[in-house]
Amino acid sequence: MKQFIEVKDVKDIGALVTEALAYKADPIRDRKLGSNKKIGLLFLNPSMRTRISTQVAAMNLGMEAIVFNAGNDGWALEFEDGAVMNGNTVEHIRDAAPVLGKYFDILGIRSFPALKNREEDYSEKLIHAFIQHAGIPVVSLESATLHPLQHIKPLPQCVANSCSQWMTAWGEAEFVITHPEGYALSQQFTRGAVITTNQEEALKDADYVYVKNWSSFEDYGNMPAVEGSWMLTHEKLSLTNQAHVMHCLPVRRNVELSDEVLDGPGSLVTEQAANRVWAAQAVLAGILANMD
Amino acid sequence: MKQFIEVKDVKDIGALVTEALAYKADPIRDRKLGSNKKIGLLFLNPSMRTRISTQVAAMNLGMEAIVFNAGNDGWALEFEDGAVMNGNTVEHIRDAAPVLGKYFDILGIRSFPALKNREEDYSEKLIHAFIQHAGIPVVSLESATLHPLQHIKPLPQCVANSCSQWMTAWGEAEFVITHPEGYALSQQFTRGAVITTNQEEALKDADYVYVKNWSSFEDYGNMPAVEGSWMLTHEKLSLTNQAHVMHCLPVRRNVELSDEVLDGPGSLVTEQAANRVWAAQAVLAGILANMD
Amino acid sequence: MKQFIEVKDVKDIGALVTEALAYKADPIRDRKLGSNKKIGLLFLNPSMRTRISTQVAAMNLGMEAIVFNAGNDGWALEFEDGAVMNGNTVEHIRDAAPVLGKYFDILGIRSFPALKNREEDYSEKLIHAFIQHAGIPVVSLESATLHPLQHIKPLPQCVANSCSQWMTAWGEAEFVITHPEGYALSQQFTRGAVITTNQEEALKDADYVYVKNWSSFEDYGNMPAVEGSWMLTHEKLSLTNQAHVMHCLPVRRNVELSDEVLDGPGSLVTEQAANRVWAAQAVLAGILANMD
Repeated sequence: MKQFIEVKDVKDIGALVTEALAYKADPIRDRKLGSNKKIGLLFLNPSMRTRISTQVAAMNLGMEAIVFNAGNDGWALEFEDGAVMNGNTVEHIRDAAPVLGKYFDILGIRSFPALKNREEDYSEKLIHAFIQHAGIPVVSLESATLHPLQHIKPLPQCVANSCSQWMTAWGEAEFVITHPEGYALSQQFTRGAVITTNQEEALKDADYVYVKNWSSFEDYGNMPAVEGSWMLTHEKLSLTNQAHVMHCLPVRRNVELSDEVLDGPGSLVTEQAANRVWAAQAVLAGILANMD
Repeated sequence: MKQFIEVKDVKDIGALVTEALAYKADPIRDRKLGSNKKIGLLFLNPSMRTRISTQVAAMNLGMEAIVFNAGNDGWALEFEDGAVMNGNTVEHIRDAAPVLGKYFDILGIRSFPALKNREEDYSEKLIHAFIQHAGIPVVSLESATLHPLQHIKPLPQCVANSCSQWMTAWGEAEFVITHPEGYALSQQFTRGAVITTNQEEALKDADYVYVKNWSSFEDYGNMPAVEGSWMLTHEKLSLTNQAHVMHCLPVRRNVELSDEVLDGPGSLVTEQAANRVWAAQAVLAGILANMD
Repeated sequence: MKQFIEVKDVKDIGALVTEALAYKADPIRDRKLGSNKKIGLLFLNPSMRTRISTQVAAMNLGMEAIVFNAGNDGWALEFEDGAVMNGNTVEHIRDAAPVLGKYFDILGIRSFPALKNREEDYSEKLIHAFIQHAGIPVVSLESATLHPLQHIKPLPQCVANSCSQWMTAWGEAEFVITHPEGYALSQQFTRGAVITTNQEEALKDADYVYVKNWSSFEDYGNMPAVEGSWMLTHEKLSLTNQAHVMHCLPVRRNVELSDEVLDGPGSLVTEQAANRVWAAQAVLAGILANMD
């Protein structure tokens, strides 16, 4: 694996999952794979689960992880080529990224979308600029439109986009997306999925339900009024085939899901978040193996 | 040891001190006890000495420590059961704590009291919620009412409370608390101590003086006017038996203690802070030993 | 080496460079030199390259590095002897530094000048207070007037000062400083250098050009108006002997240097920043070797 930004970076999804499960069974089985290798984790936006699970995954592989929270340090990057930097930005991506590429063996980056200009966000210019200029493998810890180590997350469409991209690429499950009117995702990531605005129909006989809220792609970044309640309740869950319930966390209780569902026997949310260590570990191991 | 929140979590205070002194003599004598174990240090409020000394202690035991400063990242937790989370809190303790419990083997937590509602602070609901939901041993890096790795600290009553709780539980010393009118501590932690508002009487023939300022428990969180000066000076120290002087740091010089006392031959403040590594190390070792 | 604050702390500049180059060739050749040793990196001001390169250097030597960002935690230090601390400062350097000296084996410190009072900044009281009170070797990660691990940096005169101090101490190159009227550096650091306000003359036949902007030393901390453009362009570079171009980063593109120069074949800026790992590693190794 040369980088990990989206599903196309992975040749064999099944093999990656098998590898992750092997790490879950024995976290330190590859304790020396990352020996004397360093990963930089650069956060332009805050993170809890993504940050910690990636740090733990790196440690399990014997790597040394260095975290840098750019936001707190007010590190304003410039991305425009040819910019005359007499304003607020203090450093150009063309100067910053190559240096990080010299300090580290792998670079993880998180950056949220601004949610103001759809074309700009969906062009993914920030993560592509890092890939272009860092010269080392880059792992997305969430970019403007995708969150491949999460498959769902607490901002706009990127968790839903990634979930859809991976499910349709995998293709081994019947995958249905349901959302209120006005909340259609970008067709770029949903090709191959069944899409409906009828929540009850989507829930019927489902084995797994993955709940996530997101903002509008069409009326970009806004939240059109929603008719009726879309919260997943115990009652709605009775339509399913005793479905397991997933959520990426953090979750707004009794808004997105009811307490009874989150605390019920079908809830996988804690295990899902815990599994992120093994997913990250399989990804890092794939990149490390490719270096040797 | 299964957790470390207060004195009751320790079976034998003398044995714990002996262990700490052994680590002071040879910091890396148990370099493999924490091998492949991870401690998460979660700071809902800032910390310097507590954070660094615990990190050093964990490293000495071969553990890997991951620090998470929640405050800086604006991670607003919800604690009320059944809350409809359509306001400012973004994550419920019931969802956050179990995930941390999966990432780490031990969880250290710091959280200051709000000092607005005495019942709420003294119920210690935050640290108890983490204990209840994390499913791994929890170490208090300071909670609302106690600071067991410090025995005194720079907010309200918790350092004084812990100092009193440990001294009265130990019982091998003559222990006297003195404070201005209106500053009585909660009887919950002072049972067994001699208490007086006559500072001179308390200082007389003392072998050790531990200085600390705190706010009122009765007029909760406020600072009633104090008659006369309570600052420990060279002159007052002459009443003692050439007492050693302790303070938890940080200290407001020439307000709590005079320069001449802090810089004098009897001052233990630097050694006291340095000893926190060995105390933390003995606690973590006790918890690790209990895991095997 | 007992500390690393300025050029006088190094006996043999050539030997230090040789050592750094040896680490560049084989980063982990001294993997055990720092075994069980800890370095504390205390940032009173933000840092990216300095922080990460020093962490990487410490890891390469087998040391454990603990970062503490004091600024974010609002840790207001008092430096005046005899201060009555009933104001905003919460801790005196006399109490803080000795404790850090107990937790760590080496202490790195970054602190920017306030740029308000020249005498105060140039007295370097902060870093000297840490040296005086910490009791362990101190490494400057940038002080008020010097930046010895950088030789140039984005505030006032300290990078230029350090660059001049090291170049004149080394003495093996023809060293010319050029700056606009009103921007003369302190003579304390420039003795032995050729100084001119004629930029073209300085560039003529140069083999290396090191660009840096700084504020006035005479009209302290201010920026007197500059006549003409001082930006290094391709055209100006043609005066040199196909010079290599250096800059400490971060750089304001098309203000300090043009894109064509920064992205041109003579630009060393990325390699220069990358080399900071080996410089820091040679310094830390020198201090560690002195401990054994």
